[in-house]
Amino acid sequence: MVCLVGGTIALRFYVLRFCGVESRAINKYLACKHENAGPDLLRRGSLAESAMVELWLEVESKHFDPAIAPLVYEMVVKPVLGGATDATTVEAQSEKLGKVLDVYEERLRESKYLAGDGYTLADLHHQPYLFYLMQTPKAELVTSRPHVLAWWNDVSARPAWRKTAEGMKFPTSN
Amino acid sequence: MVCLVGGTIALRFYVLRFCGVESRAINKYLACKHENAGPDLLRRGSLAESAMVELWLEVESKHFDPAIAPLVYEMVVKPVLGGATDATTVEAQSEKLGKVLDVYEERLRESKYLAGDGYTLADLHHQPYLFYLMQTPKAELVTSRPHVLAWWNDVSARPAWRKTAEGMKFPTSN
Repeated sequence: MVCLVGGTIALRFYVLRFCGVESRAINKYLACKHENAGPDLLRRGSLAESAMVELWLEVESKHFDPAIAPLVYEMVVKPVLGGATDATTVEAQSEKLGKVLDVYEERLRESKYLAGDGYTLADLHHQPYLFYLMQTPKAELVTSRPHVLAWWNDVSARPAWRKTAEGMKFPTSN
Repeated sequence: MVCLVGGTIALRFYVLRFCGVESRAINKYLACKHENAGPDLLRRGSLAESAMVELWLEVESKHFDPAIAPLVYEMVVKPVLGGATDATTVEAQSEKLGKVLDVYEERLRESKYLAGDGYTLADLHHQPYLFYLMQTPKAELVTSRPHVLAWWNDVSARPAWRKTAEGMKFPTSN
């Protein structure tokens, strides 16, 4: 559980059971708390725009993440832990991710960012796993889709992201 | 995709691909749009309270739903469609759901509702599947956990829910 007391975040035992999930809620809390600083990540000033942010946050959580997380684990994390990448899992997850990205390609053909014309938390939530994917041969899942690639080039060039990514290198990465 | 235009919701082709997911985003849109009518489902007036709503919405989406959805499908939906319930799936999903509800039991021991002292969208999102589960022998997953049961009895007794549930009966239900 994330226990919010007096504006601070105290992590308690529920985190051990629901590890990794609360990060989305924490991000939203932080985006909300600092919504007057930097880009308008939640678009709470517009009911229609905030609904689109929520929609693509949900798509990331329910479709993108289950496809890409095991793929990045197999190709990037597992070797670091001394394991061998399982080719069957890689191909199965790549197929799943490809289907998801087909829909993203359609969306990004008509809209510069996922939730609309501006960068939001919905875009940001996709970046960590894509950052790792782009360092593998399966980067072609992105590079083969021109609108997804243009979007990735845009969001990954943001100064705040570049700074963040510097701290995301695995021991085996250069 | 849910295309929000002038306050109306137009469902477009993305729904066919991401079916069932957008319902959460639609609910949030509606709760936001009507936040001055009825209970305060999102608690947007308080950063800490809204963060707790977001947290439990996320737990529902990522943990509760993947455990209970296949269980209800096997026990309630499949027979209606003429299929046979698979006992192995029922037991495997029951075990998963039990582990999730163990955490809920702890949470509801210290808090009347999931996100805090008041009823929110986080509670509401759990009700449809629980409604069907409670009509099966696996209702014991709820009835064996006193705080989960007390919570269920409370939220399912709400007049708006009782009215909604009347329209949720399957052809084989009374």
